[in-house]
Amino acid sequence: MLTMTPIGTVRNEVKTPILNGWGKVVSDLVLEERYAEALDGLEDFSHVLVIFWLDQAGAPKSLKGHVQGREELPIAGLFARRGPSRPNPIGVSAVPLLNREKNILRVQALDAIDGTPLIDIKPYTPAFDRVENARIPEWCKRVYEIEDYL
Amino acid sequence: MLTMTPIGTVRNEVKTPILNGWGKVVSDLVLEERYAEALDGLEDFSHVLVIFWLDQAGAPKSLKGHVQGREELPIAGLFARRGPSRPNPIGVSAVPLLNREKNILRVQALDAIDGTPLIDIKPYTPAFDRVENARIPEWCKRVYEIEDYL
Repeated sequence: MLTMTPIGTVRNEVKTPILNGWGKVVSDLVLEERYAEALDGLEDFSHVLVIFWLDQAGAPKSLKGHVQGREELPIAGLFARRGPSRPNPIGVSAVPLLNREKNILRVQALDAIDGTPLIDIKPYTPAFDRVENARIPEWCKRVYEIEDYL
Repeated sequence: MLTMTPIGTVRNEVKTPILNGWGKVVSDLVLEERYAEALDGLEDFSHVLVIFWLDQAGAPKSLKGHVQGREELPIAGLFARRGPSRPNPIGVSAVPLLNREKNILRVQALDAIDGTPLIDIKPYTPAFDRVENARIPEWCKRVYEIEDYL
């Protein structure tokens, strides 16, 4: 067993889980005050990787299933999908950093509801995080076409 | 406290931690056999996000420090750096998926030593993971110029 302690909490207006439509959501990542200085220098990056704990997701019902729970989308294993129900319910999102004030980061488009525990913050670094020619399957492109998906 | 159970283990030729030079390392991500079907469909993606537990990193000695421990590089908070010593020692790497056979994924350039516990696997999805115009500070560009860094 591996154990973690949250470093802070997400604060935003989204009080219950939604599947899509995160793009305009602005969130404050409120870290514990003792971690304020650990954020120094992060404001020089335009984007951050937010690692968070999907505490509302529930255990996976099965190891394979329809993408987004939609029957018109194909079946894939849970590690081939980005859904929240996973053996270890960790979310990873690359989002724009709008502002930093002491121990609080303001970000946009984070797909996490109010109260979500924060596990880690990393600077978004293209040399590590940006893959120029990533190939994705056809069904994945169809998901993007769903209204308000991003 | 949040608790996790590893889903598998990294297998490669790197037996002790190294700071740089991961680019050519080939690793097998050996998931528990019961998770084999949870990988179905992942082989249609060219890259994966590997989430792993940096069990050799040790607790952070301080909240701020020189990047890569090098005095010629600036001081930054640990959340503004990608070093392994963090309050919750989670690593996130986007790497090419070379092959999948049942419960085993072969990847390249994963910056994790042999025996590292695996926490989660996600498909690399440009709409979420690729930021086109990310800004990074000048010191970060200097880090990339270190021989063998990537």
